[in-house]
Amino acid sequence: MIEKDPYLLTPGPLTTSLTVKQAMLRDWGSWDGDFNGMTAQVCQRLLEAAGGEQSHVCVPVQGSGTFAVEAVLGTLIAPDSHTLVLMNGAYGKRIGQILDYLDRPYLSIDKGDYEPPRGDEVAAFLSAHPEVAQVVVVHCETSSGILNPIEEIAEVCEQAGTRLIIDSMSAFGALPVSVAALPCAALVSSANKCFEGVPGFGFAIIERSLLEGAQGRCHSLSLDLYEQWRYMEKNGQWRYTPPTHVVAAFLQALKEHEAEGGVAGRLTRYTRNRNRLVAGMRELGFQTLLADEWLSPIITTFLSPGASTFDFRQFYDEIKHQGFVIYPGKLTVTDSFRIGCIGQLFDEQMDDVISAVANACKNMGLTLPVPPPVLTPDNLKSD
Amino acid sequence: MIEKDPYLLTPGPLTTSLTVKQAMLRDWGSWDGDFNGMTAQVCQRLLEAAGGEQSHVCVPVQGSGTFAVEAVLGTLIAPDSHTLVLMNGAYGKRIGQILDYLDRPYLSIDKGDYEPPRGDEVAAFLSAHPEVAQVVVVHCETSSGILNPIEEIAEVCEQAGTRLIIDSMSAFGALPVSVAALPCAALVSSANKCFEGVPGFGFAIIERSLLEGAQGRCHSLSLDLYEQWRYMEKNGQWRYTPPTHVVAAFLQALKEHEAEGGVAGRLTRYTRNRNRLVAGMRELGFQTLLADEWLSPIITTFLSPGASTFDFRQFYDEIKHQGFVIYPGKLTVTDSFRIGCIGQLFDEQMDDVISAVANACKNMGLTLPVPPPVLTPDNLKSD
Ligand SMILES: Cc1ncc(COP(=O)(O)O)c(C=O)c1O
Ligand SMILES: Cc1ncc(COP(=O)(O)O)c(C=O)c1O
Repeated sequence: MIEKDPYLLTPGPLTTSLTVKQAMLRDWGSWDGDFNGMTAQVCQRLLEAAGGEQSHVCVPVQGSGTFAVEAVLGTLIAPDSHTLVLMNGAYGKRIGQILDYLDRPYLSIDKGDYEPPRGDEVAAFLSAHPEVAQVVVVHCETSSGILNPIEEIAEVCEQAGTRLIIDSMSAFGALPVSVAALPCAALVSSANKCFEGVPGFGFAIIERSLLEGAQGRCHSLSLDLYEQWRYMEKNGQWRYTPPTHVVAAFLQALKEHEAEGGVAGRLTRYTRNRNRLVAGMRELGFQTLLADEWLSPIITTFLSPGASTFDFRQFYDEIKHQGFVIYPGKLTVTDSFRIGCIGQLFDEQMDDVISAVANACKNMGLTLPVPPPVLTPDNLKSD
Repeated sequence: MIEKDPYLLTPGPLTTSLTVKQAMLRDWGSWDGDFNGMTAQVCQRLLEAAGGEQSHVCVPVQGSGTFAVEAVLGTLIAPDSHTLVLMNGAYGKRIGQILDYLDRPYLSIDKGDYEPPRGDEVAAFLSAHPEVAQVVVVHCETSSGILNPIEEIAEVCEQAGTRLIIDSMSAFGALPVSVAALPCAALVSSANKCFEGVPGFGFAIIERSLLEGAQGRCHSLSLDLYEQWRYMEKNGQWRYTPPTHVVAAFLQALKEHEAEGGVAGRLTRYTRNRNRLVAGMRELGFQTLLADEWLSPIITTFLSPGASTFDFRQFYDEIKHQGFVIYPGKLTVTDSFRIGCIGQLFDEQMDDVISAVANACKNMGLTLPVPPPVLTPDNLKSD
């Protein structure tokens, strides 16, 4: 058993720097000016990172990322307004589930487990369904690790005069995005992803004019981003008790993000991590689910060796024992597992996790190379 | 300017122990067994503290305390079921506001700013309104600091066959409560109050049989406590990313709570703090809003000296400068401020804050003793 804490090779919560965690060694009054100053700085920095200073506002909200997604949909989508949800994995599906709860009408293009939604098909869909007022898409669909082509989708939305809402939970902070340039009506993310903070709140970058018109619309008091924003504008405070320590850690994380060169610097490191990981795993005989052009620098899905006889639990424990926490797969069609490359991870950790995987395979008597993926109805998983 | 962090004499976030904060110096995978074990322990300990092991379950939920209150109301109250809300301050009013959002029918007994709802009037109301299926009451109404008589209210609810839901946000952990004995269908609280954790999640202790019948009822995916509970029962994990560090801190806080003698031990210290505070402030010439029998050992409201000319902002800064963060008043009828006695506060801090208040009065040229409160329509505040 190793003594050190394991590295988290997961899509968040992730391994954060010690200095980020140390920022939590103080208590702040949520009513106090010192804390309000931190909140204001966090929002300002996020707005800048999203390129929305002129047109958008940043509204944080307590809870996990899903809370922030639900808050955005509940606050921005009018009761009878139609939505197109682009789905290619669990997080796209969750957007549909939220709209079911909210009883808002929606249509979807469901590409299954790992195919990207493309601009041309969205354009065709929108021209066949002029009632659609907004499109919702997931930036990096973390369930497979695919990087969806948000630029081409934004372009066709703009042409069709349709608003675009992006769940950029696992991408914002590492992948360049400009809400004004895309354009994008609202982008949602959270503290514990590519900015490398700890979990406890999410936030949305929202077109100011859209939010201004959203009073009285939300289904939930707690998730009402119009009220949250108004209250914060007026008092400089969160409407209800904020996760003060998590906010302090996030401000420190934002400073470290800046020191690393902002979005560009972080993208460079994550891409390098991903490349090292994928090359090493392929050398061991593993296959990625996705072709290279769709791989995100966030998390990569690998097909499980030995297909149905593969015991992920044991594989996980073997690797954890060597100091790394990996992630289960989230595909419906085939067995897989995921390894993330975000957080405080560098060359050394990527090399070491590959050795750990190699050891696990040896200990478990797994045969490599794994066969190339054959995703046919024959090997559909039962659940 | 003092160098140390100020003590928070507020109703939460509060001053926590260093060891509680140090529990946040690690990163946990939210999918990992180590973390799931911590969540299970937290829930088990809370259930025991509430005396609900046989009859109730504990369901935590991400977000602030208000999120947990909304989650309980949304999950437990059926669409056409009638509710009686007992209001005597801001948090009782907020319950009404949540029910407005949820579009659930409710009646209220509104006692104004600082009068307690009494058993006999609730009994009379319930017999006049047999359609009421649940009563919601705030345990310690933090806006004035009044300790509402939940025992007599529980008794009349039981007699009338009406369910009782308690917002015990600022009381649970310091005031003894047994959900089975009262009885109480659901009790809500959060991490950053009398258990002395840091903010980031709330929780509810809910009658198991009631929750079992609550599938498909909640207005919100994120706040659906039925789904949260089911998921946790099945997987041992939170349904969406938990505030891992905050949970770790809370487990440490629960251990320290136990070491202090549990609820009884904490009540003893807080009561001593409150007594010392009130005696010292009265000696300076300040008046408490409430008569002694209604004072909670959580937070006390004092009437502002000099009435309308009193500048709370300056008073606050004078006291903060000496190392203590106090809290503004939340009364509508008269100017006031609040001083809390929960968190890592002991005799020394209570004595020192009284000196700090005395210095602030001197520096501001405030005349003491303040006149006894005369709460008539003549001195109603304008907002
Ligand atoms: C793309 C995406 N959307 C939404 C979520 C949900 O976030 P949370 O688990 O914080 O609720 C995640 C979490 O990984 C995600 O990757
Ligand atoms: C009695 C009571 N209810 C509800 C709340 C709301 O909690 P939060 O600010 O965490 O949303 C508070 C906060 O102090 C409270 O004291």
